[in-house]
Amino acid sequence: MRVVDLRSDTVTQPTPAMRKAMAEAEVGDDVYGEDPTVNRLEALAAEMLGFETALFMPSGTMTNQVALMLHLKRGQEVIAPEGAHIYEYEPGSLAVLAGGTIRLVEAPYGVPDPEAVRWAIHTSAHQAPTGLIALENTHNTAGGTVVPLEAQRAIQQVAREAGLPIHLDGARLFNAAVAQGRPPSELARGFTTVSICLSKGLGAPVGSLLLMPQALRAEAWRYRKLLGGGMRQAGVLAAAGLLALTEGPKHLPRDHQMARALAEGLLRLNLEVDLQAVQTNMVYARVPQAPAFVQRLRELGVLANAMGPGRVRFVTHRDLLDEDIPLALERVEQALQLA
Amino acid sequence: MRVVDLRSDTVTQPTPAMRKAMAEAEVGDDVYGEDPTVNRLEALAAEMLGFETALFMPSGTMTNQVALMLHLKRGQEVIAPEGAHIYEYEPGSLAVLAGGTIRLVEAPYGVPDPEAVRWAIHTSAHQAPTGLIALENTHNTAGGTVVPLEAQRAIQQVAREAGLPIHLDGARLFNAAVAQGRPPSELARGFTTVSICLSKGLGAPVGSLLLMPQALRAEAWRYRKLLGGGMRQAGVLAAAGLLALTEGPKHLPRDHQMARALAEGLLRLNLEVDLQAVQTNMVYARVPQAPAFVQRLRELGVLANAMGPGRVRFVTHRDLLDEDIPLALERVEQALQLA
Amino acid sequence: MRVVDLRSDTVTQPTPAMRKAMAEAEVGDDVYGEDPTVNRLEALAAEMLGFETALFMPSGTMTNQVALMLHLKRGQEVIAPEGAHIYEYEPGSLAVLAGGTIRLVEAPYGVPDPEAVRWAIHTSAHQAPTGLIALENTHNTAGGTVVPLEAQRAIQQVAREAGLPIHLDGARLFNAAVAQGRPPSELARGFTTVSICLSKGLGAPVGSLLLMPQALRAEAWRYRKLLGGGMRQAGVLAAAGLLALTEGPKHLPRDHQMARALAEGLLRLNLEVDLQAVQTNMVYARVPQAPAFVQRLRELGVLANAMGPGRVRFVTHRDLLDEDIPLALERVEQALQLA
Amino acid sequence: MRVVDLRSDTVTQPTPAMRKAMAEAEVGDDVYGEDPTVNRLEALAAEMLGFETALFMPSGTMTNQVALMLHLKRGQEVIAPEGAHIYEYEPGSLAVLAGGTIRLVEAPYGVPDPEAVRWAIHTSAHQAPTGLIALENTHNTAGGTVVPLEAQRAIQQVAREAGLPIHLDGARLFNAAVAQGRPPSELARGFTTVSICLSKGLGAPVGSLLLMPQALRAEAWRYRKLLGGGMRQAGVLAAAGLLALTEGPKHLPRDHQMARALAEGLLRLNLEVDLQAVQTNMVYARVPQAPAFVQRLRELGVLANAMGPGRVRFVTHRDLLDEDIPLALERVEQALQLA
Repeated sequence: MRVVDLRSDTVTQPTPAMRKAMAEAEVGDDVYGEDPTVNRLEALAAEMLGFETALFMPSGTMTNQVALMLHLKRGQEVIAPEGAHIYEYEPGSLAVLAGGTIRLVEAPYGVPDPEAVRWAIHTSAHQAPTGLIALENTHNTAGGTVVPLEAQRAIQQVAREAGLPIHLDGARLFNAAVAQGRPPSELARGFTTVSICLSKGLGAPVGSLLLMPQALRAEAWRYRKLLGGGMRQAGVLAAAGLLALTEGPKHLPRDHQMARALAEGLLRLNLEVDLQAVQTNMVYARVPQAPAFVQRLRELGVLANAMGPGRVRFVTHRDLLDEDIPLALERVEQALQLA
Repeated sequence: MRVVDLRSDTVTQPTPAMRKAMAEAEVGDDVYGEDPTVNRLEALAAEMLGFETALFMPSGTMTNQVALMLHLKRGQEVIAPEGAHIYEYEPGSLAVLAGGTIRLVEAPYGVPDPEAVRWAIHTSAHQAPTGLIALENTHNTAGGTVVPLEAQRAIQQVAREAGLPIHLDGARLFNAAVAQGRPPSELARGFTTVSICLSKGLGAPVGSLLLMPQALRAEAWRYRKLLGGGMRQAGVLAAAGLLALTEGPKHLPRDHQMARALAEGLLRLNLEVDLQAVQTNMVYARVPQAPAFVQRLRELGVLANAMGPGRVRFVTHRDLLDEDIPLALERVEQALQLA
Repeated sequence: MRVVDLRSDTVTQPTPAMRKAMAEAEVGDDVYGEDPTVNRLEALAAEMLGFETALFMPSGTMTNQVALMLHLKRGQEVIAPEGAHIYEYEPGSLAVLAGGTIRLVEAPYGVPDPEAVRWAIHTSAHQAPTGLIALENTHNTAGGTVVPLEAQRAIQQVAREAGLPIHLDGARLFNAAVAQGRPPSELARGFTTVSICLSKGLGAPVGSLLLMPQALRAEAWRYRKLLGGGMRQAGVLAAAGLLALTEGPKHLPRDHQMARALAEGLLRLNLEVDLQAVQTNMVYARVPQAPAFVQRLRELGVLANAMGPGRVRFVTHRDLLDEDIPLALERVEQALQLA
Repeated sequence: MRVVDLRSDTVTQPTPAMRKAMAEAEVGDDVYGEDPTVNRLEALAAEMLGFETALFMPSGTMTNQVALMLHLKRGQEVIAPEGAHIYEYEPGSLAVLAGGTIRLVEAPYGVPDPEAVRWAIHTSAHQAPTGLIALENTHNTAGGTVVPLEAQRAIQQVAREAGLPIHLDGARLFNAAVAQGRPPSELARGFTTVSICLSKGLGAPVGSLLLMPQALRAEAWRYRKLLGGGMRQAGVLAAAGLLALTEGPKHLPRDHQMARALAEGLLRLNLEVDLQAVQTNMVYARVPQAPAFVQRLRELGVLANAMGPGRVRFVTHRDLLDEDIPLALERVEQALQLA
């Protein structure tokens, strides 16, 4: 049975070209800064995103958390949109690593009201002072939604006026860029730091990058080492990462079309889907008793994730075949009849 | 000009009897466990609250935070009602000290729905696992509101079923007991640990206690020392604390009556006050541009705290004279006319 | 039986004058910065030590740890003399609170070689970078020994050249000042921050102060609150602290004479005592099976502390009677005969 | 010019067989536990080392630090041999991540006296309580020295009697096994947890494993994720790791012979080398002004590391040619003549 894996775009397998590049990669000891492939990847990412420098790490959690360590003094607060990955899916990292605390603001479709962000800034010393504002683009738990440029600019303006740094969790920044028809550098502009992932829709097996000004690099490097993120011949991963950066974005429009088709199909099956939130490669459907439904789907050959008690997430990606979406919809229909 | 200080019940001054007790206190080195007055205070508190043991500390923040350190492994989550003091007013302590993270649940009048608490419990290893449930009684930012016994019992039941400890921030537990006409031990029952403050409505100058089972005491003692909370001849404080515990609660009914009178007076002045929330010694009023309003009030001789941009808190306490409430209302009226 | 308590100068009881001062203290809510007695104490301490400002806290551990939090970024190292109190007797605080690590340097009589300090400074990013140098004067575990001014100046010079802050744990700075016949301000000069204790030889029941430049005060205040060190009517403690600061130092010469007499007496009893280390109010004697010996002494009415398996510490203080030293020596002799 | 790189065995390049294995690796999403190659590697490592389970991570720092997080409660102490990698070269990680503090014991040739370990155990609550004992085999900064089995057994016995866990930093455990002519499982026996590195002498580009009992695995997994060590298609690395585990150890005897030859050659050049410490693949030589000497060597085509002001480390590994050792010695001779 063909299994349609819609759990996440992280399940994508390295392409033959990536495997070849990994096998042939020119490598060195990256802890000494001598891996030429890592150095090439970092330089390319910095150039593509419009930053002075980049640092390669094993995961998006680590790139985000190093950014939090860079920006927050212990006991400070980061303002983030509700549902932010740095709060929900980086389990306790913010507290343990940065000694930081979270201040969530309402964020319909992942976009906080700039005024709400401004009001959330603490200056009274009786509370944890704000040390950072963070956004997430695309915003995963809001539906893979895009942060519009105007909203982003307005929130960056709030940060600037408050003298605060602003970080972007751009694990799926390329999805946002494709959805908006703009270069990723335009979406990355105005942030103090940006993290991007090569291992999601872009298809690399492992790896993320933190983009930053040169002045922060030595400290970021120290924190990466402190966390155990210093790798030796990391060029074997970076070689795949280079292809992910250069070739990966081309596949994203198809991912987004598949998500759209899936969403419309689910609506036809009378599942509750907010079509307005289907902007990139994700579809969230409201389903009662989501964990049980996901289990039934699994038995029928469709993998998806229950996100809480009443919500199922489907994610499209480059490893799906064209026939996978109709097939998945067929099986969803069966699963609903079994309920 | 008589200044009416309604900022907090923490401004209460030690009584002459307390001052006398402090001057005559029998003391020893409490870091060696040899202060007889501290030992008496801890024994009395444990007995009054129905716990095996108690530990004296310099503040309510420290008693709460030691409890969080006792219950949470690093990177775990504590479920708490929105607006909880441990999140809002213990600035970053949870993150820095316990490496813990917060999961706020909606809590109208400070009371979370037990089912919402149950749903907030995380077991998936992809998120920060829940390590503790916490309540606050009375709940300060909800209005000094009381957690009804039935709700408390239901939430304790959720904790029990999940095998989780449950902590009570009882900084104003005696206010809750008075408001409900029940002994404090009944409100403390069913919690793994409880913190109480002697320096708020009860009138002691300094001091809080953490109530706990004997099995946790050595670890609590170690954390108190680690935080710098070990004090030498602390009996000078404990002597006042003994009077706070035994005599202090008698004054609380009057505090509550004053709050009621104040609330009704503010309503007559057309200020927005939720009378249903005025259950103990606090009154929250919605006032546009609260910080400016509080400043005008200050110039007229009434001290109150702006809690956010549109909210003013008034707190009654034993150091107020009977005429202070009418006086304060008069000045509030003037301040409103000046606006 | 008269018990001679030589465990620590922390056992000193508040004097009648202190008790009177505490009973009559003018107090306010120090969390709002409104306790006039605390404010007076902080101003006096700052003036006496030659610093811009001071902050009152419940213990020496807290003043030291707040200093470490001020100076160290997470993952940085503090260079300290071996046996330093901040490492040995502030249990894990440096790691938990500041996320800092220790680099001990050899320090005969508590005095590190300035060149050894210089060599211990890390700049390679592969190791924890040095963030602070710390000294302790008098140095407790080295024997209550004094750091000579020249050595202190040389180490301060090393710090300056490396662009590093330098902290003094001055829990017994007044003992050092008396021993050197110099004002405490001269010993405090050249440090970025200094902590002093009022509750040791100076006789206050509770309290320590952190001396610092004004620019660090807001952050120190925040950390004090984060640790649970914010106290309300702390003026009751500060009132005794004022007397400790002004009257306490006068008693220290007698403490030092008693220690000298005790040391000479122990030598006569053939105990191994390094007389060169007996510079203030402490006497360390080498005794095989120290814990058992201390236990025997206790039964004979002399209290002392075993510091490790073969070392006993005796500390003199103002609560001892003139006859206590001869009495203690008599009992030590008995204890030795029982061995 | 042929450059002889003796800085570390971490500089080893993946072999053609490793590259092929990486290119052909069967992979899955390891964050979901579905990477078959990672699963095979973990199973093989567990079997070879005699443990119930293993967890793959990006670095030896991370495997060690996860072990410290597993064993230490915040504010506890780990006893380790002086010069331990977990203290010297995992920069501040112990403090930031585990909130733990270090207690170094003397360790000639990397081997602490079991009695010294016993004495270093703290039980008094006034100090940081001991939570763990750690050893390092081979011990890097002591010279790549082997911990004899009897010493290891005696220290494990001390841990057992004290009820303490005991961790082995076995980054170069296979070198120790080869040097002792015993299977690695025999050296790993008796430890609660063991970390091993695939990327040093064994030649894999990236990767380490933490060996542990099954009961600790879920918590270790959580900490790995918290630190950002969760990787997706990590099988591409594990494929090389499998070859490192199975084929890598065969190359170590030659590494050790080369080190021996190098050490003897350096002695002939009148450099101070402790031949007794040359037990595996490292040679430490005392050289005045080591950093300058290392710089001169670099210009002559030999790379080595200065370890402190007067010490140079040379490490042999599988990527060296037979002629590299004589060539390196020739160039060292030239560098000495230039001095």
